[in-house]
Amino acid sequence: MPVKTTSISLSTQGNADVHDITNQVTRSITQSGLEDGTATIFCPSSTSALTTIEYESGAISDLRRLFDEIVSSNREYAHNERWHDGNGHSHVRAALLGPSITIPFVDGQLTLGTWQQVIYVDFDNRSRQRKLVIQLIGE
Amino acid sequence: MPVKTTSISLSTQGNADVHDITNQVTRSITQSGLEDGTATIFCPSSTSALTTIEYESGAISDLRRLFDEIVSSNREYAHNERWHDGNGHSHVRAALLGPSITIPFVDGQLTLGTWQQVIYVDFDNRSRQRKLVIQLIGE
Amino acid sequence: MPVKTTSISLSTQGNADVHDITNQVTRSITQSGLEDGTATIFCPSSTSALTTIEYESGAISDLRRLFDEIVSSNREYAHNERWHDGNGHSHVRAALLGPSITIPFVDGQLTLGTWQQVIYVDFDNRSRQRKLVIQLIGE
Repeated sequence: MPVKTTSISLSTQGNADVHDITNQVTRSITQSGLEDGTATIFCPSSTSALTTIEYESGAISDLRRLFDEIVSSNREYAHNERWHDGNGHSHVRAALLGPSITIPFVDGQLTLGTWQQVIYVDFDNRSRQRKLVIQLIGE
Repeated sequence: MPVKTTSISLSTQGNADVHDITNQVTRSITQSGLEDGTATIFCPSSTSALTTIEYESGAISDLRRLFDEIVSSNREYAHNERWHDGNGHSHVRAALLGPSITIPFVDGQLTLGTWQQVIYVDFDNRSRQRKLVIQLIGE
Repeated sequence: MPVKTTSISLSTQGNADVHDITNQVTRSITQSGLEDGTATIFCPSSTSALTTIEYESGAISDLRRLFDEIVSSNREYAHNERWHDGNGHSHVRAALLGPSITIPFVDGQLTLGTWQQVIYVDFDNRSRQRKLVIQLIGE
């Protein structure tokens, strides 16, 4: 049973920019030739995170409002006082949402629900070039 | 080393209905014949989520209060304005808590703590028939 | 492809005590002899949790403030009323942040970002001796 590691590249705008990466993950499974196994998606970054959601503008907007409310960008952060890069809120948001997601695939397909997409959220305060790790273990 | 994928079915009541699924996950390991490996539990849904907790009524009630406070059902959601299904808060709560959990098992037993159970939380606003994916990779 | 399970031990102070465990996880990969695969880190506890963050005092302090604000220790908890151990907030915080994290490793190295560390947060209200499970599946 092989391990296959690939990556996907994204241009992000920051400030809770949300990207649907479902198709890229599905494509990596197809290209691997694996049929059954576990897909681990990981973001090698401390200011962005992964989860799933119904990818439609309303739910995305509602999720962003939550982070604006509980981890506002308009207040003091100890990180900012020390480093002056203004993204203290980005670090807290990313740590809360988490950098990894693990999804089983069966017969070459992710076991997502009908209305469920994999999203990458870039909480940083500026545009970035991002690379996510996709690792498949299966057969 | 094989991949074994099974599922468990649940009847849920919605509105942050919490189910202890530890026994079902343990049973799937026993039935697989695997001794050591990783169990990935995944909910193919955008309005429900997984985590662990001490499964007792107090802690469950406290967890539900947190979601009532930071993602209240009694306010406007852009999702609801667009789709009129009234579960905008369910989507945000599920995205925050996350759809996957990964637990090592050793000698056929989950490596959970003494007071730690695996829970499935259905945040949707109505009763549902749910199916969770359990995928084991091990030996 | 083998499964290798080890553990790391920690002395923690409680009250959102944060430990950088990146080096211990890296060491377990080195000692396993595996080159490519997935590292699952799991805390067998219902009052502590795992995530990643830039491990510097500002970001740590900001993360702790979030939990003080949304899951305050200075209020009533149903768990405390029932069990009188005073750590009701610890259970809710741990359930929210989550007990598991899954990180791909490649060429014997975790695929973390430059400023990203793996942290263990002990939310319990007293000092503890803790043991975390590290399970590697790879080749």
